[in-house]
Amino acid sequence: MPQNPSANLKGQKKINLILVGFGRVGRAFYGLLREKRALIKSRYNLNPTLLSILNSTGGIASDKSIHPEKPSDICSSDLTQHSLWQKGLRLEHVLKTTPAGVLVECTPSDLQTGEPGLGHLHLALDNGWQVVTADKGALVVDFHGLREKAVRKGLGLGASAAAGAALPTLDVGRVSLAGAEITSLAGVLNGTTNYILTQMALGTSYEKALEEAQAKGIAEPDPSLDVGGWDTAAKLIIIANAVMGLNLSLKDVDVEPITDVSSRTCVSVQNGGKSLKLVGKVHKIKNIFQAQVKVEAIDKCHPLYGVDGAEKGIVYFTDTMGAVAIRGGKSDPRAAAAALLKDIINIYHRY
Amino acid sequence: MPQNPSANLKGQKKINLILVGFGRVGRAFYGLLREKRALIKSRYNLNPTLLSILNSTGGIASDKSIHPEKPSDICSSDLTQHSLWQKGLRLEHVLKTTPAGVLVECTPSDLQTGEPGLGHLHLALDNGWQVVTADKGALVVDFHGLREKAVRKGLGLGASAAAGAALPTLDVGRVSLAGAEITSLAGVLNGTTNYILTQMALGTSYEKALEEAQAKGIAEPDPSLDVGGWDTAAKLIIIANAVMGLNLSLKDVDVEPITDVSSRTCVSVQNGGKSLKLVGKVHKIKNIFQAQVKVEAIDKCHPLYGVDGAEKGIVYFTDTMGAVAIRGGKSDPRAAAAALLKDIINIYHRY
Repeated sequence: MPQNPSANLKGQKKINLILVGFGRVGRAFYGLLREKRALIKSRYNLNPTLLSILNSTGGIASDKSIHPEKPSDICSSDLTQHSLWQKGLRLEHVLKTTPAGVLVECTPSDLQTGEPGLGHLHLALDNGWQVVTADKGALVVDFHGLREKAVRKGLGLGASAAAGAALPTLDVGRVSLAGAEITSLAGVLNGTTNYILTQMALGTSYEKALEEAQAKGIAEPDPSLDVGGWDTAAKLIIIANAVMGLNLSLKDVDVEPITDVSSRTCVSVQNGGKSLKLVGKVHKIKNIFQAQVKVEAIDKCHPLYGVDGAEKGIVYFTDTMGAVAIRGGKSDPRAAAAALLKDIINIYHRY
Repeated sequence: MPQNPSANLKGQKKINLILVGFGRVGRAFYGLLREKRALIKSRYNLNPTLLSILNSTGGIASDKSIHPEKPSDICSSDLTQHSLWQKGLRLEHVLKTTPAGVLVECTPSDLQTGEPGLGHLHLALDNGWQVVTADKGALVVDFHGLREKAVRKGLGLGASAAAGAALPTLDVGRVSLAGAEITSLAGVLNGTTNYILTQMALGTSYEKALEEAQAKGIAEPDPSLDVGGWDTAAKLIIIANAVMGLNLSLKDVDVEPITDVSSRTCVSVQNGGKSLKLVGKVHKIKNIFQAQVKVEAIDKCHPLYGVDGAEKGIVYFTDTMGAVAIRGGKSDPRAAAAALLKDIINIYHRY
């Protein structure tokens, strides 16, 4: 049976897309868009059309779709080999010469400065483009600046891919809990550290567990942002600022790495019926919201108990709706791309 | 710190509300609206204003808010005692004489005919009113008819309160998984039966567990819709039709009651490391989606394992985002009212 048969009541809307950043997530988005094009047309009456891809040295741009119809024509990861390659092509030029649509930002940015992504996002909004982003840095540094600009201009700012990707932290916190007061939240927001701690609870050493995670592609070659707790802190800040309207920055979060935990402790906690997790938490202490990332022993009746391996989860505690917990959602580049695509659809589609 | 400081950039929008049905959920909505009015104004720039309350014999209506400012003025559950009471006041009259806003439908309707709620919802849409509803019957019988009318007229149809209430089944299925293919779903959608089965797994008899649930206000005096599986089937149909675009009706669902299960079986399954749940499920058999409500033994690694007592949960299995599970959300009338309010906010507010 067709999904959402109520679509197709209005004419199809063309959405011009510019993709910035062509690493793992950018390439996954490129592939996913081709794969999902027919479904997005039939289910949502939307026709997202990729007109440009840019990286730090240049890019390709066209006034018609640069998306090949045949999978065999897929753009190589080396953009410079593309027939339309223009060295030095700049985002500003493409934004100004293309009818506005959505900027898809996939550049990994510095958590301290938010650049280069922050500049891209402001530039896009300044030029009347909607934005969706997988870039944590820009949002950690200036979520409210971006959000206020987007609201003032009536533009969308999709941040799902930077805040848990396929785990819908922002949707649930803002849409599903609209009108509720969130009194606290807790999340297992980093699959790499959760995988390592889960393995350590089975008796594996930290070093061995990290090696395994790297071999499986779960951990990066340089795992320091993950194991140091900074990736969790970054997501926590984005979620707290977007969902709870807080104004946290990295310096406000008390961050603890997982590297101080021994395998013996993990096993012993597990044997005691609890489970060690790297938990990002926002809660009130003396009536002021405090944020922390700490290794905590989670009880069996806690909603995050059982969120094991590379899985992620979050629980919101509210005044009117009780505790609402979400878990799961794949953590690979394709899932991040799916989160970008979801945000694009939700800018245009109403339920 | 204030939540969502980016609000207040545009003028406040007045939203006229008509509340139909003044039972447990209707009264909870009335109370919650008063309690949340200031927050909704400051956070969302919205000013929902209750102008009318109707029941099956008449109602009250005014051209200004009928919401008292002081809690002590709260409208008694007996509408006929209100100074504005008009016997025989009809919804159609109020809809036609009030500038359009949102109809809040809280009439419990028959699962076979969908009435009287179905008539209310069509009438409201016909008169240009948005609708939000806690009424399962109307949606089970004619979700697509209502949805198509709403889409054609550019109106919202909020159904969260009828499909899990504070458990955001529809938001996650439609918004968070937009663009993904849902290959199957499974839910523990009824708190009463889940409470009973959880107690039975501890050795309590069915009769005793039901009595306890009734004493705690979890089970209705007549529990037949719950224990017979029909409440689960109704929610399953609404979710499958709204999220997956299926066209299921009650006759399409294979429904099993929990009354055939013995306490001994529950205990034995529990001792074997699994857990008996009344699971509503939509999955493909020979490439065709099939719906069923059955008592199933859930494995420890299943996302619904641990959803115990009066708690509810749902898991969506998808092509691009993996399995996304939600659990929790209170089940009382106040939580259902919060789900109605959430849907109203989301008709007007953009993130």
